[in-house]
Amino acid sequence: MSKKTSKDETNATAKAHARVRGPEPLTKRLDGIPDFFYALKASTPDGDSSLAAERAKASFDVHAMTKVLFGEQLMGVFTDTLSVIEADPVFNKENRYYMGRSDRFLNRLAMDSRFAQLARELKWNDAQRTVANLLIDEPGSFSLHTGMFMPCLNSQGTDEQRKYWLGLAHNYRIIGCYAQTELGHGSNVQGLETTATYIPEKEQFEIHSPTLTSAKWWVGGLGKTATHAVVMARLITKGKDMGPHPFIVPIRSLEDHKPFKGIMVGDVGPKMGFNCVDNGFILFNKYHIPRDHMLMRFSKVDKEGNYHAPPVQRISYGTMIFVRAYLVASSALALARGATVAVRYSAVRRQFTDPEASKEDPVFQHFTPAPQQNPKLKCETAVIDYSLQQFRLFPIIAQSYALHFSGFWMLRIYVKMMKNINDGNLDLLPEVHAASSGLKSLTTTIAAAGIEEARRSCGGHGYSLFSGLPDFLNTFLPLVTLEGDNHLLTQQTARYLLKQVRKYAQDPSSIPKSEGSTTKYLGDPLLPHWAAVKTEKDFHKPAALLEAYAHRSKRLVVDLATKMAKGQIWNDSLIEMYAISKAHCQYILLKNFIHAAYDEKRLAKQPEVGAALVKLCILFGLSTMQSELSEFVEDGFVSATQIAWLRAQIKVSLAAVRPDAVALVDSWAIPDYVLNSALGRYDGKVYESMFEMALKEPLNVNARTRGDVVEGYEEYLRPLIRRGLSDSTSEKAKL
Amino acid sequence: MSKKTSKDETNATAKAHARVRGPEPLTKRLDGIPDFFYALKASTPDGDSSLAAERAKASFDVHAMTKVLFGEQLMGVFTDTLSVIEADPVFNKENRYYMGRSDRFLNRLAMDSRFAQLARELKWNDAQRTVANLLIDEPGSFSLHTGMFMPCLNSQGTDEQRKYWLGLAHNYRIIGCYAQTELGHGSNVQGLETTATYIPEKEQFEIHSPTLTSAKWWVGGLGKTATHAVVMARLITKGKDMGPHPFIVPIRSLEDHKPFKGIMVGDVGPKMGFNCVDNGFILFNKYHIPRDHMLMRFSKVDKEGNYHAPPVQRISYGTMIFVRAYLVASSALALARGATVAVRYSAVRRQFTDPEASKEDPVFQHFTPAPQQNPKLKCETAVIDYSLQQFRLFPIIAQSYALHFSGFWMLRIYVKMMKNINDGNLDLLPEVHAASSGLKSLTTTIAAAGIEEARRSCGGHGYSLFSGLPDFLNTFLPLVTLEGDNHLLTQQTARYLLKQVRKYAQDPSSIPKSEGSTTKYLGDPLLPHWAAVKTEKDFHKPAALLEAYAHRSKRLVVDLATKMAKGQIWNDSLIEMYAISKAHCQYILLKNFIHAAYDEKRLAKQPEVGAALVKLCILFGLSTMQSELSEFVEDGFVSATQIAWLRAQIKVSLAAVRPDAVALVDSWAIPDYVLNSALGRYDGKVYESMFEMALKEPLNVNARTRGDVVEGYEEYLRPLIRRGLSDSTSEKAKL
Repeated sequence: MSKKTSKDETNATAKAHARVRGPEPLTKRLDGIPDFFYALKASTPDGDSSLAAERAKASFDVHAMTKVLFGEQLMGVFTDTLSVIEADPVFNKENRYYMGRSDRFLNRLAMDSRFAQLARELKWNDAQRTVANLLIDEPGSFSLHTGMFMPCLNSQGTDEQRKYWLGLAHNYRIIGCYAQTELGHGSNVQGLETTATYIPEKEQFEIHSPTLTSAKWWVGGLGKTATHAVVMARLITKGKDMGPHPFIVPIRSLEDHKPFKGIMVGDVGPKMGFNCVDNGFILFNKYHIPRDHMLMRFSKVDKEGNYHAPPVQRISYGTMIFVRAYLVASSALALARGATVAVRYSAVRRQFTDPEASKEDPVFQHFTPAPQQNPKLKCETAVIDYSLQQFRLFPIIAQSYALHFSGFWMLRIYVKMMKNINDGNLDLLPEVHAASSGLKSLTTTIAAAGIEEARRSCGGHGYSLFSGLPDFLNTFLPLVTLEGDNHLLTQQTARYLLKQVRKYAQDPSSIPKSEGSTTKYLGDPLLPHWAAVKTEKDFHKPAALLEAYAHRSKRLVVDLATKMAKGQIWNDSLIEMYAISKAHCQYILLKNFIHAAYDEKRLAKQPEVGAALVKLCILFGLSTMQSELSEFVEDGFVSATQIAWLRAQIKVSLAAVRPDAVALVDSWAIPDYVLNSALGRYDGKVYESMFEMALKEPLNVNARTRGDVVEGYEEYLRPLIRRGLSDSTSEKAKL
Repeated sequence: MSKKTSKDETNATAKAHARVRGPEPLTKRLDGIPDFFYALKASTPDGDSSLAAERAKASFDVHAMTKVLFGEQLMGVFTDTLSVIEADPVFNKENRYYMGRSDRFLNRLAMDSRFAQLARELKWNDAQRTVANLLIDEPGSFSLHTGMFMPCLNSQGTDEQRKYWLGLAHNYRIIGCYAQTELGHGSNVQGLETTATYIPEKEQFEIHSPTLTSAKWWVGGLGKTATHAVVMARLITKGKDMGPHPFIVPIRSLEDHKPFKGIMVGDVGPKMGFNCVDNGFILFNKYHIPRDHMLMRFSKVDKEGNYHAPPVQRISYGTMIFVRAYLVASSALALARGATVAVRYSAVRRQFTDPEASKEDPVFQHFTPAPQQNPKLKCETAVIDYSLQQFRLFPIIAQSYALHFSGFWMLRIYVKMMKNINDGNLDLLPEVHAASSGLKSLTTTIAAAGIEEARRSCGGHGYSLFSGLPDFLNTFLPLVTLEGDNHLLTQQTARYLLKQVRKYAQDPSSIPKSEGSTTKYLGDPLLPHWAAVKTEKDFHKPAALLEAYAHRSKRLVVDLATKMAKGQIWNDSLIEMYAISKAHCQYILLKNFIHAAYDEKRLAKQPEVGAALVKLCILFGLSTMQSELSEFVEDGFVSATQIAWLRAQIKVSLAAVRPDAVALVDSWAIPDYVLNSALGRYDGKVYESMFEMALKEPLNVNARTRGDVVEGYEEYLRPLIRRGLSDSTSEKAKL
């Protein structure tokens, strides 16, 4: 690889790649470990040589691929921020996997505090803050302070409110959270129970929790940290319920952090993931706040208690769409991380010997056992060379790229839409909202499934926290429920698609002309069969694949529209809506991937990068089609012969991607500092790293201070083992 | 329901059901909680009334269903054992979700010790021990002592060895574990590196770990607890490597529990699940044991070091098949538990208002809000009434029953096979081995997916450990990798099926005649289309469904056999093998379910139970077919019209199961003590229970001792909030 990378040594991408590798394991001796241990080596072939051989196989330069993925500028931010974070002892991750909840919370609080200090001192902008948070890779109690509390003040507060509260919040004089969800209500905001009743004689609102189920619940940062909350409560004035509105509510004293009287606040308890965050609950017992604590940018209550609705019902989808676009991009990175660990470890891990599977493996072909090894043991096959392992993992690599290109597409289209909206043009909103809902649902579902599949593909060691996958999956998983439940959300997308297909049928002139439209295909005629695929090779033509995706999605939308026109009710249509949203978004994913793989401008000087992307894009198209095959087949669009070809061509496609597998995950440039994984390390020193981490397990460290005898022995084990025996009984020590 | 159950009051099933309900939440006051909290009620409709309405809808008597599932005898054991375990403070589960790893390990050790005492005092038999372990519901350090160490001594030891070692082990004078897996080798036993070299002049074996990767790893109970291990090591005598053999190796002194010199032993660190177990590693540095510590029932090494192979190569599949059968039955129970939580909570949880969805809900129809509630808030629809929720959850109920009937079938056929083997008849072995491999793979995969889907269907609260699902899923998940990786295992099944289909083609007289055969269908002719389904109603005929499953499985086997006959190599066939094994085992699941649902003997007096089972069986057949639809469709066997009918009939089938949903999960009689779930409680007091559990979170308990101020405030929060402000600064307390 050196010849390929030399020209890049000075650029930001090269600098980023130079920081990817973490420290060598087992270099520092620990107390209480016998000398013979440090003389042991892993058996050969070792991880380093297996990964080196993989990297030599790649058809493209990983630095060039990284540039295509992120661009030089972002890689510069990445490298600079990594230098700061990785060097700071507060952000050391060495003990993360051993900490119980209370320690982990406290440890994260220390990070929050340090982060605030660094951000101030180094004047971090939004990009730097985002990257720093990605590197720290653990949600924190202050996440909602910057992620929800401040944006909410900004968008819902009057100019005066913004000036006052944002000033305090920006400097962490107050720490805020956002309290919407209740114990009994999540998705249905209109069903919230908490009330804010206006009392004109006092010019105050009385915040009250009428029932147990009205407790605010799950609020990040509220449990132990926040001093203030934006509380969504039903505004009641002059006896009328005006529905949920936002209020700034002081929670804890700025003098001593004690909760105020009339408030009962606490942590909601342990969770899958997010255990470093104090997601909290709060109950209000007729708790009073001044009138000016209602956020009144839009709706207002005057001194007398008169309610003033906003002049125009403002559509505030903007933030929501941005968050969803960000989640799509995050899903790509998350999946890339799962793939990085599993693919590297699959190249290092060897199990059984299959010479046919290993015929392209130079390490296998030139194997001689090391002196300490049993000469009877043959070289084993790297598990990445088993076809079933490829079938499990390579589509995940392809998905990570697909999600990435659609994530960046969403961020671009979001910017365009916001610009249009500022110019008074709302045309793009419904389409982008529909895409963002369905894509959030689909991509977080794909990523959660892919990370878990990657973890399982690591065999037994995938269960160890040291693999880096269980803890990370737990942190990712809530995204399938947060910010719109992945099942509920599909109704948003389906509703829009149904509307479009009806409109296009009634008025063909309304069919979009632009190639950039995500719904233009809904205006195409339905084809009787897949004429574009006449031979097996046609499966490698992106346009042919995209045609099939468009056909399937349109057919499903038309079928449901027809059923509903005949009277099928909404509740009986939810299963089909879920299918439609998925089909549409898989079409978008493939479309954007094709667009990126054939991006002549970016890829002109990098034909190998383009070629590798095309191969991956085809694999994405084929493997996704296979996983949803019945929907392509059931109307006769795809024939029995074409199905047989498809199954064969997936194997061809896996073989085409095989030499690039490790390079494709390397291209994400996820540093060992983030992976925090014994299995996924850049250098392949899997087994050394597993051991180093195990030696630091507190059960071991603690026992080593007691002559290597576990706490609890005297109480629970000794009475059992030595029952009826006096201590002087002369049993054989060993038996 | 009282009229239905009165006649059963005195039998074991009724007694079991009477013990299902746990203690009422929020009945004991805690320190530091304000009075107003205890006056709050959950909003109506509350969980109790929703579940009562569900239970009134059921078409069958749950006690009768429980009897069909387990029989009276097993329910008797269950009730007796539950009385002992639930009453014993050592087995209290109240703090389980709050404990960090070290505490949880220690707590489990106390249980292990108490369990040993109880088992001895109460003279528990195997069934009682098994039930007690299911109730304790947490793997322990002694699990491998009784689960692997003792069975291994029993099957591999000479009579003399068995007498000596089993006597000690039975009385917990020694505590054993089973050390096979190494850091670098799991599935491939022949690749193990640890050696046991015979030294004739000392009459000893030298156990040695030549490399870092040869460390034994993952061994349950080894890390901190065991005194002895059965170690699988390559026997080397007279310079010849005879491959892996079992040796009893003393690990820790029986005097003081210290590890012996020449051994490095410890815990492998934190994991997903199993954190109460000290899965351990061990390295041997030329560690000597006497010759008689080799387990010599079959292979022997004499004083001079001559190796004596066993007279007949004994097939020792017995234990393995039993373990797999047990895992199939366990998967059923696990899935039933996931379904119990999700179905009950879906009946309690209400979100949005859809009168059409709620038209069969008497609670919705007769709703009046409680006095403390906002009269503006309408009654919401129970989420179980949304069709998408039914589509997610009801197939899981059906799967739990399908797995159960096949699990019990496997246990019966195992007993029959072992009886045959003892009579010298090995005929059943290959078929049962093939079924056990594929079913272990399929059922643990189904259960893991189903539990996670059940968890996600609970929305946000599904992430709380209090839901009872995250911790439980983590304990279950390793089963997809343990005892044969679920992907690898399918090769065993596929190999057998390929062999049968070739044999039947060559020699039709070899086609099994018995209806009990799992492979008779491989001898049937391949049909061109699904003639058995002529109208939509035919989808509710079990025989028609089973025909389709048989056809699809046979076609896949024949296709692969044909490809391999034309030269497709083994490694290129693994994807198809996975599909074949799954198809065959889905056929077995459906076949056994049908058999159970039409079991005239057991169901004669219980026609409603039979009718409910038939409905559920059809749902299992339809929903499984839909999830694998392309394999049924792609050769034209199922037509486009039939597919459209299938999708419609799934909705019909979901509606048919709907009234029985809660009763079907109640029938498993899983006690609240085991569920340990706020969401899945029998009494539906979901929100009260969530609160009670949250109040006990150590972060809250700890803060309450400090005026409700979190530890870490002085260090991390105060400096930030009050930066530059003196303590006497007269800021407004609230701002």
